[in-house]
Amino acid sequence: MFNSIRKLATSANKMAVPSIKLASGHKMPLVGFGLWKVPRESCADTVYDAIKAGYRHFDGAWDYTNSAEAGQGVQKAIKEGLVKREDLFITSKLWCNYKKRENALQMAKLENEAWGLGYLDLSFLFEEMRWPCFWTDKEQTKVTPLDPVPVSETWGALEELVHNGTVKSIGISNFSAQLIYDLLSYAKVPPSVLQIEHHPYLTQPDLVKLAQDNNIQVTGYSTFGPLSFLEMDHAGAKSVKPLFETDVVKSIAEKHGKTPGQVLLRWCTQRNVIVIPKSNNVDRLKQNLDCCSFDLTEDEIKQISGLNMGLRFNNPATLSTPIRIFA
Amino acid sequence: MFNSIRKLATSANKMAVPSIKLASGHKMPLVGFGLWKVPRESCADTVYDAIKAGYRHFDGAWDYTNSAEAGQGVQKAIKEGLVKREDLFITSKLWCNYKKRENALQMAKLENEAWGLGYLDLSFLFEEMRWPCFWTDKEQTKVTPLDPVPVSETWGALEELVHNGTVKSIGISNFSAQLIYDLLSYAKVPPSVLQIEHHPYLTQPDLVKLAQDNNIQVTGYSTFGPLSFLEMDHAGAKSVKPLFETDVVKSIAEKHGKTPGQVLLRWCTQRNVIVIPKSNNVDRLKQNLDCCSFDLTEDEIKQISGLNMGLRFNNPATLSTPIRIFA
Repeated sequence: MFNSIRKLATSANKMAVPSIKLASGHKMPLVGFGLWKVPRESCADTVYDAIKAGYRHFDGAWDYTNSAEAGQGVQKAIKEGLVKREDLFITSKLWCNYKKRENALQMAKLENEAWGLGYLDLSFLFEEMRWPCFWTDKEQTKVTPLDPVPVSETWGALEELVHNGTVKSIGISNFSAQLIYDLLSYAKVPPSVLQIEHHPYLTQPDLVKLAQDNNIQVTGYSTFGPLSFLEMDHAGAKSVKPLFETDVVKSIAEKHGKTPGQVLLRWCTQRNVIVIPKSNNVDRLKQNLDCCSFDLTEDEIKQISGLNMGLRFNNPATLSTPIRIFA
Repeated sequence: MFNSIRKLATSANKMAVPSIKLASGHKMPLVGFGLWKVPRESCADTVYDAIKAGYRHFDGAWDYTNSAEAGQGVQKAIKEGLVKREDLFITSKLWCNYKKRENALQMAKLENEAWGLGYLDLSFLFEEMRWPCFWTDKEQTKVTPLDPVPVSETWGALEELVHNGTVKSIGISNFSAQLIYDLLSYAKVPPSVLQIEHHPYLTQPDLVKLAQDNNIQVTGYSTFGPLSFLEMDHAGAKSVKPLFETDVVKSIAEKHGKTPGQVLLRWCTQRNVIVIPKSNNVDRLKQNLDCCSFDLTEDEIKQISGLNMGLRFNNPATLSTPIRIFA
């Protein structure tokens, strides 16, 4: 299965990053570059460098406040002939504070204009707490509860975005099983991708299986587990062993002559789980991209999955105004 | 909080079982009698005896194949002047294989006619695998997947049942957080009750809190944990210590001079979680009802909750055709 997918790799990708076919018919590279926490000031350069290094897939969101700068980096690369628009895969997210149809449409329009590339490749409906949205809110500190709008209304808005050409594919993020089953019962445009927290401390095998069985590809975020959350002073992240330092991951990395990060990314991509690591360091950025050039054994994959402890780091239930979406 | 609720106990209840007020405005006794697995042949007598013992709340479902017999037991008790219809609280469930509006309405009508009491007090929308429904299926062995009908359509049907007087209150069962948030965004008649698996091995505190914070009362099923599942030869149930035999439950029971079962039920009712134990034994039936006449300390409640291991017994993901509703 994986071998056939690998052959889909476009020649444009220096390191032969394979792509995976979505329900929409479009192809999505299995390895992308995550723009969460990429500083606005350096974002254009970071994206430009990432394209140079071979990245073709960028995972952004209005909430990350760097879409316009990311777009500038892409435009520079296109202008210099490094890459064409159609070689790229740009992902954005509709934060669920803008679930009303008119807000969803407006937000997508603004995000599309910020990138300045004509269209977006994928837009996720994010089931999450809302962070302030920078195009309407002046204060940037408030977290307000979920917008009480039916998911069906927002999904309808995303379907409109497909029909009017703003986005090519639509997906869901942080959805749990029941909401997926419900969505599948009324969606006219089926979800192409499910984006979830996914690392060896939170493997969610049933959720991954449910999605893949229903032709929904899975993107895992926070592949390195606690690492992304340490700089946010996350108590849960500080309480466990970094994944890079676990015996299982270390020994497998040594065996293959790869970094622990590459092993964790391969643990995903070999199971067709798309990854979106981020790095501000050019060497690491290259290492991360090179995570499909070796294969783990089935037993190694099992050993890594065996680290599972159902430990979720991105959980708005722990906020001072708890939002219990994962209950 | 609990003391004020206790005062709501109707004088009709010999053992002063408190009731709790629902979003619908109706009252629901905190202790009910669960009809799951009560044999059809003895069900009329069992229900009649339970009413004699003081039970006023019965938790049935068409799927249990004993609604007509349960109704006969109730009718006998009413005819003999033991109880009036308005003193009773009869719960039924809409299995999610009949989620289409017309099927939902038909099933409720048939179940209401089976009980023969004029109306039902509560109907649950059950998010579960389907078992064959005995009013349409001749074969009783098949398990078929979820009916791909939007929850919003089925909820609309339940709302119709409230408007046409078939049921007084409507609720949800086995719903997880995201589907609850979504339902709350469009429900015209809000859900009164959430029924979930709830015992010390599966405490789900976030889900209970989410429901209670949104004025949805919680009914816990399988309060005794693995016990109900042992007779079904459930591997998970056989692999853990019976709750009655844990040191925590045993020592608290001894201290209070109560049975372990009563302690487990009190662990629920003291936190306003409604319970629906079943027994075919008259003494145990009385013991179960008498689970609000003593109080656990806060520390004892915490100790019992500390047994939590996220262990779910009622999970259709383990079926040969898995339905992954809890992923």
